[in-house]
Amino acid sequence: MSQNTLPHLVPVPLTRVAIDGPFWAPRLAVNRAVTIPENYAKCQATGRIDAFRLDWRPGSAEEPPHHFWDSDVAKWLEAAAYSLATHPDAETEAQVDAVVDLIAAAQQPDGYLNVHFTVVEPQNRFRNLRDMHELYCAGHLMEAAVAHYQATGKRKLLDVMCRYADYIDTVFGPEPGKKRGYCGHEEIELALVKLYRATGEERYLHLAKFFVDERGRQPHYYDIEARARGEDPTKTFFGGDYAYLQAHVPVREQTDITGHSVRAMYLCSGMADVAMETGDVTLLPALERLWRSATERRMYVTGGIGSSAYLERFTFDYDLPNDIAYAETCAAIALVFFAHRMLQITGDGAYADVMERALYNGVISGVSLAGDTFFYANPLEVDPIAHANRPDLFGKNTILPRREPWFSCSCCPPNLARMLASLGQYVASTGLDPAQRSQVFIHLYMGGRVELELADGGLVLTQETRYPWDGDVRITVQPDAPARFTLALRIPGWATASRSRVNGREVDLKGITQKGYAHIDRVWRPGDAVDLSLPMPVERIEAHPAVRADSGRVALQRGPLVYCLEEADSGPRLGDIALPMDATLRAEFDPSLLGGVVAISAEAQRRALEGWDGLLYQPRPTQTERVTIKAVPYFAWANRVPGEMLVWIRSVS
Amino acid sequence: MSQNTLPHLVPVPLTRVAIDGPFWAPRLAVNRAVTIPENYAKCQATGRIDAFRLDWRPGSAEEPPHHFWDSDVAKWLEAAAYSLATHPDAETEAQVDAVVDLIAAAQQPDGYLNVHFTVVEPQNRFRNLRDMHELYCAGHLMEAAVAHYQATGKRKLLDVMCRYADYIDTVFGPEPGKKRGYCGHEEIELALVKLYRATGEERYLHLAKFFVDERGRQPHYYDIEARARGEDPTKTFFGGDYAYLQAHVPVREQTDITGHSVRAMYLCSGMADVAMETGDVTLLPALERLWRSATERRMYVTGGIGSSAYLERFTFDYDLPNDIAYAETCAAIALVFFAHRMLQITGDGAYADVMERALYNGVISGVSLAGDTFFYANPLEVDPIAHANRPDLFGKNTILPRREPWFSCSCCPPNLARMLASLGQYVASTGLDPAQRSQVFIHLYMGGRVELELADGGLVLTQETRYPWDGDVRITVQPDAPARFTLALRIPGWATASRSRVNGREVDLKGITQKGYAHIDRVWRPGDAVDLSLPMPVERIEAHPAVRADSGRVALQRGPLVYCLEEADSGPRLGDIALPMDATLRAEFDPSLLGGVVAISAEAQRRALEGWDGLLYQPRPTQTERVTIKAVPYFAWANRVPGEMLVWIRSVS
Repeated sequence: MSQNTLPHLVPVPLTRVAIDGPFWAPRLAVNRAVTIPENYAKCQATGRIDAFRLDWRPGSAEEPPHHFWDSDVAKWLEAAAYSLATHPDAETEAQVDAVVDLIAAAQQPDGYLNVHFTVVEPQNRFRNLRDMHELYCAGHLMEAAVAHYQATGKRKLLDVMCRYADYIDTVFGPEPGKKRGYCGHEEIELALVKLYRATGEERYLHLAKFFVDERGRQPHYYDIEARARGEDPTKTFFGGDYAYLQAHVPVREQTDITGHSVRAMYLCSGMADVAMETGDVTLLPALERLWRSATERRMYVTGGIGSSAYLERFTFDYDLPNDIAYAETCAAIALVFFAHRMLQITGDGAYADVMERALYNGVISGVSLAGDTFFYANPLEVDPIAHANRPDLFGKNTILPRREPWFSCSCCPPNLARMLASLGQYVASTGLDPAQRSQVFIHLYMGGRVELELADGGLVLTQETRYPWDGDVRITVQPDAPARFTLALRIPGWATASRSRVNGREVDLKGITQKGYAHIDRVWRPGDAVDLSLPMPVERIEAHPAVRADSGRVALQRGPLVYCLEEADSGPRLGDIALPMDATLRAEFDPSLLGGVVAISAEAQRRALEGWDGLLYQPRPTQTERVTIKAVPYFAWANRVPGEMLVWIRSVS
Repeated sequence: MSQNTLPHLVPVPLTRVAIDGPFWAPRLAVNRAVTIPENYAKCQATGRIDAFRLDWRPGSAEEPPHHFWDSDVAKWLEAAAYSLATHPDAETEAQVDAVVDLIAAAQQPDGYLNVHFTVVEPQNRFRNLRDMHELYCAGHLMEAAVAHYQATGKRKLLDVMCRYADYIDTVFGPEPGKKRGYCGHEEIELALVKLYRATGEERYLHLAKFFVDERGRQPHYYDIEARARGEDPTKTFFGGDYAYLQAHVPVREQTDITGHSVRAMYLCSGMADVAMETGDVTLLPALERLWRSATERRMYVTGGIGSSAYLERFTFDYDLPNDIAYAETCAAIALVFFAHRMLQITGDGAYADVMERALYNGVISGVSLAGDTFFYANPLEVDPIAHANRPDLFGKNTILPRREPWFSCSCCPPNLARMLASLGQYVASTGLDPAQRSQVFIHLYMGGRVELELADGGLVLTQETRYPWDGDVRITVQPDAPARFTLALRIPGWATASRSRVNGREVDLKGITQKGYAHIDRVWRPGDAVDLSLPMPVERIEAHPAVRADSGRVALQRGPLVYCLEEADSGPRLGDIALPMDATLRAEFDPSLLGGVVAISAEAQRRALEGWDGLLYQPRPTQTERVTIKAVPYFAWANRVPGEMLVWIRSVS
């Protein structure tokens, strides 16, 4: 099967990418110094790590290990492994090794490895795939194992997870006597492909493909499984519609992106992985449909997806309310995963545009600048008074006006940690053009180095840039020896007036740009320099006319960054602020603001409170007053005194 | 105590008011011919009436009589009685008599009368005043009894309810050995005052005052009562905060209107009644504060109140979302009750303005033009696709895109029926000015006759008007003999250019208008005619700048009517329609539209869908197209093909 891979780009692994630019380097340092250790401390304090000791017993006064817990530890472990890969550190490695030992010791003689189903309800192993996240936890442990192996060369966890995968492979599959089941929360599909890539064991790829192919088929596994438990299959916490689990029809027949947004993105990522590795092109039309459904009709301008806090799900086209937006941090991360895979398959910058939109906005909004608190949901409009007074809209779920150090269901903090710790792998890819000549793609601009091997030898690319604060990027090309290859530089969708010079000589970008990449094909010599200029005017972005929440409003975007107003800068009643269409938008770097950001200032209007004493309604026009607004990057909101926040600003002529 | 009444106006009773104008007469006819009989049929079909036979037994296959059911039957009975008072009809009277017989037969030997607590849980009589609506049901039966007596002269139900009130008076009160309790759902307070007025029995007034005075005092009755049941007082369905029941502090100390909106309005109505009849002026500051809180900060432009479907409650100042607006029909009706009472106490047209706003908008929106279906909630923006796809926001409660024939908790349909059947009593009042000269107040303009007695003899006032379709009103004054009195004509708050002539001679309205009424003091002779002109330009109304949902939007109002757009007239994507500030608003009566209404047309803009293929976000400005919009009265929405609806229209310069 591996001979039939789809032609695709291959990401330069994070071990060969160094990031030292002014935007990302401090963030990644905070991730290593604060977020990853804090995640560990929380996993420790809440019993998630000790749970692997398997010493919980029925009747214990302590709460039983939750059936997601394994995945939280796995994601922390994966994050810590990535961190070790780029920044070796003895203390972290000792922690990691100790946790790996614990996990290994928890493996059952048959290879099975799940805390909850070992100590709490061993009789129910693989009896409720629909609800119990059992294979999901396995998937996260597999991802951790691969990361740990690649970071440290240590095989211990990899071997453990191969044994578990081998066991799972004996339980699930199309063969007679095996269960034709698949997990209600997708994850293991993409994890098995990772395990396959790390080990070369094709059974893992076959199993991943089985899980993908079997999903949504009739007779429906979840019906059969529920009846086997003596339950009515229509009685489910999500209302009986398998679209919630992306299992209403086989994956190739799915048209709209549905249900739980993280699950949907993990499924699509796994589908793309299976397509890449098996060459199964029949998955591609569905992937493209689901991508378009997700990103052309159901995505916030921040790259947030899954607009409903109720069931953390996609709803319907253009339903993108701002104040009750869920836009789970994990979902934006998962959208990056999906986008990154589609980018490898297609080399199309449209995928990179969405990847970057999510990364710079709805992903990193999930963590505070200090790295110690997290958003689960990422609304685009917040009024803290509403949060305090409308428990029906905000209180019973996780749409909060401030970040929290941890959650009872704490998927997002360690997901952020592993996303950031693995950022390097999203920077560049290699590929071959139709004439089998080498291509090197740069997807993301950030100061640092990328090292890779071409057919004729090594290559080091060095980026110097203040991106995203400005769009000037210098890339120095250092091949071992002069070599012909294509350097494909991403021209973001928002960059309409980009220019480039090679060794000072202007390049005709229009002529060489395809699908969002400028393909510079030449013999590169050591020291060649490419200067790329991506002007970043502040844009007033409109949403599709069917997005009811955004009518008459604009979002300010500069480069990849979406901006917001905060009460700390722009005063109260943000929703009443009206930004004239002809107002000058001044972008200026302020080193003292929020760790140093480009802020956008403008003169706007807001209605005055004078004349409203004792009145709730009156005939217009009423008085307005001038107000100077200052927009800050969305990702940086809620790092100061609590207050209102708003992305979509009223626009007036 | 009765000697100490507060000076106040006295409504002309509905038996002396005939309504024949083009707006109300057909509506009241539909109420008599369809709504009241349909309410009866539903009470019958659902077992609510037969429940009074007390033949439900524990273990029965039928569901037990619900603890609100008595009140639904009572409200239907009250409505039917009002109908009999103005339009005697043998069939209805026979139905009413039969139900009265049933109710009377259900009374227990000690006077107690409640179906649920007689057949379902007799052991729990008056043991959970907080939750079980026991005194609330009693109050509605008292109101029905008074209406029945006043309509027919028959004392049967009145005597039954006096016996019940006498029994209640033995159970509750400040005296040792009595319970110091009060109902979690206010209603009995205002009902006892009605019973007092009908019978002269001062104990009923004392008991009403006790319930008002005791509310919210410490030690808290609901704490004591819960502990007596062996329950934790903090464990309640409403979250333990007695503000939900307006019982967090004594009523005189309450500042903001809180909790369940219908309860709050019934409490305020009862407080006003007690103040009027006992002369207890210490209630007035609280009444004024609560009025201002409700109407100056927590009321929709339609007169709807209680913005949260969750617990049907008031939330916080200026929290008036349009799509998830609850604005229960019963709450708007209850606001009319409160407003009407404050109007009698103060003679201030500001109360009449709110009463009229609620009546013409958020009250009658609750019933279809055909009279057979009802809204429980009255949102100000509806997208049926959202209703179908967001069960979390709309599905679990009663915010619906279409009216329904009945509800499991069906308070609103019979409340509408009794409101409309008793409309006559809101038209006019009599009073005395400081010099003890007679005053006759006209609060509402509608074609018809008002008969009343002055000190010197009878008076008939005849109104001829097409109000609210236009603001021209002719009032013919027909005293038995020439008589000096003040005719106080309401000049609505929205009427800024009103004029009046008496027998053709212009009156200086400014000089004689106080607190919203033009006081025309003269010797009136038979046949004198007053012409009142209340011009009704279409107004663009703004909401207070702190109402986040309405920023940048206007509501169209003409006279007392608030307008809305419907998809049937104005096409889809109503929220994207932009109405230029200088657009001409053409008001025209269309006899073929919605039973004949004045519609408002204008040229506006909506963004085009061209240029958006495959795009969710793009830099502005994008294309717009012209669209002719037609606004219809809000009350008449949802009487055609289902579609979008919108009150607050985007306004652009």
